[in-house]
Amino acid sequence: MDTTQLITQSLRQLNFGKQSAGIMQAALIAVDPRAAVLKHLIRDGEFLKADGFVYNLDDFSRVILVGAGKAGQPMAEAVYQVLGDKLETGIVVVKGGYKSQSELPGKVQVHEAGHPIPDAEGVAAALKIIRLLEQTDENDLVISLISGGGSALMTSPVEGISLEDLQNLTQVLLDSGANINEINALRKHLDRIKGGQLARYAYPSKMINLILSDVVGDPLDVIASGPSVPDGSTFAEALAILEKYQIKHRIPTTVLEYLQLGADGLRPETPKFGEAIFSSVINIIVGSNRTASQAAFNQAIKDGFNTLVLSNFLQGEARQAGKFLAAILKQVALYDQPISRPACIIAGGETTVIIQGEGLGGRNQELVLSAVTDLQGLTRVAMISLATDGGDGPSDAAGAVVTGETYQRALSLGLLPESFLKRNDAYNFFEPLGDLIKTGPTQTNVNDLIFLFAY
Amino acid sequence: MDTTQLITQSLRQLNFGKQSAGIMQAALIAVDPRAAVLKHLIRDGEFLKADGFVYNLDDFSRVILVGAGKAGQPMAEAVYQVLGDKLETGIVVVKGGYKSQSELPGKVQVHEAGHPIPDAEGVAAALKIIRLLEQTDENDLVISLISGGGSALMTSPVEGISLEDLQNLTQVLLDSGANINEINALRKHLDRIKGGQLARYAYPSKMINLILSDVVGDPLDVIASGPSVPDGSTFAEALAILEKYQIKHRIPTTVLEYLQLGADGLRPETPKFGEAIFSSVINIIVGSNRTASQAAFNQAIKDGFNTLVLSNFLQGEARQAGKFLAAILKQVALYDQPISRPACIIAGGETTVIIQGEGLGGRNQELVLSAVTDLQGLTRVAMISLATDGGDGPSDAAGAVVTGETYQRALSLGLLPESFLKRNDAYNFFEPLGDLIKTGPTQTNVNDLIFLFAY
Repeated sequence: MDTTQLITQSLRQLNFGKQSAGIMQAALIAVDPRAAVLKHLIRDGEFLKADGFVYNLDDFSRVILVGAGKAGQPMAEAVYQVLGDKLETGIVVVKGGYKSQSELPGKVQVHEAGHPIPDAEGVAAALKIIRLLEQTDENDLVISLISGGGSALMTSPVEGISLEDLQNLTQVLLDSGANINEINALRKHLDRIKGGQLARYAYPSKMINLILSDVVGDPLDVIASGPSVPDGSTFAEALAILEKYQIKHRIPTTVLEYLQLGADGLRPETPKFGEAIFSSVINIIVGSNRTASQAAFNQAIKDGFNTLVLSNFLQGEARQAGKFLAAILKQVALYDQPISRPACIIAGGETTVIIQGEGLGGRNQELVLSAVTDLQGLTRVAMISLATDGGDGPSDAAGAVVTGETYQRALSLGLLPESFLKRNDAYNFFEPLGDLIKTGPTQTNVNDLIFLFAY
Repeated sequence: MDTTQLITQSLRQLNFGKQSAGIMQAALIAVDPRAAVLKHLIRDGEFLKADGFVYNLDDFSRVILVGAGKAGQPMAEAVYQVLGDKLETGIVVVKGGYKSQSELPGKVQVHEAGHPIPDAEGVAAALKIIRLLEQTDENDLVISLISGGGSALMTSPVEGISLEDLQNLTQVLLDSGANINEINALRKHLDRIKGGQLARYAYPSKMINLILSDVVGDPLDVIASGPSVPDGSTFAEALAILEKYQIKHRIPTTVLEYLQLGADGLRPETPKFGEAIFSSVINIIVGSNRTASQAAFNQAIKDGFNTLVLSNFLQGEARQAGKFLAAILKQVALYDQPISRPACIIAGGETTVIIQGEGLGGRNQELVLSAVTDLQGLTRVAMISLATDGGDGPSDAAGAVVTGETYQRALSLGLLPESFLKRNDAYNFFEPLGDLIKTGPTQTNVNDLIFLFAY
């Protein structure tokens, strides 16, 4: 992956375009799935080092690979690069269209499946993973690879429940106003893999989970529905959520009956904190928004910028975040606060867009569009927002760049930022200006990065 | 003004309550109207120094005081303290209820008038100010005091236009979606004082304007509608705005006729940049959100905190700003970024609340309420939002404080932050917790300050 040229081209109107592109490129390189795995999984003769943990490969009869997520193939290739013939067998599920010419040996299968809506292929692949792990024992080492999309790609509804049942349940929960933790509590109790259950199949093997986080804040129990971490929720709580939102009558009886059996102790609970199975499991975040922002931070420092990372937890409405970040950039430009020029302030996370119009855009483009008016007239400033997967919303752009001159340049083309904002039409505002950033798919996803530059 | 004890009392559950109260107190002291004037207007024998400008009082036959705004009386008292008997006469307009036992000599009159809706008292007082300034000449020095509310308190509709006409016009403009600059363009062309015209009455006297800013970003042409600064708008533009929003038919014909006469050159334009009258005028911001944040910054540094001022331009929705600031405080707590503990991060500005519920609250209380869930469980952190005038929304609180324990403490009282947020009922969330900050009226207003502490 080399997006430097693409980003530089997108930033050609900035007189420091190449430098800022280099900072963004550093961020993307740090979370490249292959590089991320290679940084955390290191071979030293018969020893395999995974962060602080060391495994003697001679202790294991087999090393088995499983995993699910959009970055599954490059992550698997990295593991193969480390282990070579020590890698015995494996099954990895990726999104349809994400399987490519493989360097992997035939014994490691890559399956394509549906995303974001799970399909029969994903269910079949998940069952294969379960079967494979059921045959492992204490002489095996299991390496599991998790990345964005893993939850949908590795779905295995419990007996008697259909994929359609699960989708309807999710929709009813969303409509009722249930939050993501509540939705996950139900998902984990109606699936064979989520909520720590993947780790249970692997037990008593040793298990290394390598995780590329696409969830803001990197909560292990949320990423891909936490297949290898203790579940904090119970069957009884899952039932209580349906009670709370008074939606029991809208749920299939098969689902209600299954949950009730669980609450009555007649179905096995998801694994809980402190259970023995987790003593042989380690979870390593190999890449996240924080990894990317730190790499950008280091590159910016190297390039002579005064640099701050504001947060990796940015959430909320894109158009509000844009105004908020503009207020900070304005402070840099006018008062040399919180830091003085040349300044590079980095924020990461993922905002949301409330769609009210019929335009084209994405959260990153809308975020910077909302800053155009507030930055108007400031000299030598730029705000850049970037989707690290290269795809911002339904558009072919990864994000866009705004400077203090954008307002006037737009006006001279007859483009009013307020009108485009009202229509959620950021793409068609930035397109004629040539200010979209187009990287193409980056094969990774650690949410979004926003850069405030004053140079 | 000593609010330290009051703030300390409000922050009693913080184990660093007294220290943070001291930082807030330093901010409020720096923008105390009297202290602010005394800092920028200094007497040295026959010399009067106003920042970089020096006036020899012996050159002037009279020093005349005018002004309008909620802080008018303490500002006037400060001027009298500096000038003593050199102060010849004066008229200052304050909000009803804001006139107090005065240290001022009888020759300086304090009038009360309506705010935020102008009334006949304000119009009468404004006319008195005009008459007084019309009698000045090049041997006079005029000192003008501007603070929050000045625009409404010193209203003087042009001939043939009533107060009611102006209020209806403003409402029609607001309903049509006109922005504040457009509304001001019309106001300035239908009033005798706004848009630089006060300075024209004072000319050829020398004029010193001492301004306590209650507008985010301190734009001189917006504060009190810019009575002493060049107006960038014209009669023709004012008319075009009515055209743009297609609201001419909803405007009284007297207003339209007046504007048309102006556009035809038959009424004097508001004074423009470069006109001679401004050569004898100086405008000094004696206090602003930035003054307050800098004072807080200095005190926090003195107290050993790592300290940043993020911005003085914070705007947008209170409940979104709260989440953004929580994202930054979480970063400090978990990753020692953008600065490490003990940390004090300061943001200033003024957010807005979109009222959807029927609760009690204000923008500051709502801002921190929206951070309760995101800060849940973090140790040794606090977010405090404070209206510098001591009155947040229609409540008797100035703001509120949230810590990492607030969520659990609230839950144990059966208080769900989400429900109170939905109802815009922040006051009734914080009241039972004892986490409201009550300072009482501070007699100043430089918008809001938000403090992020990690200690």
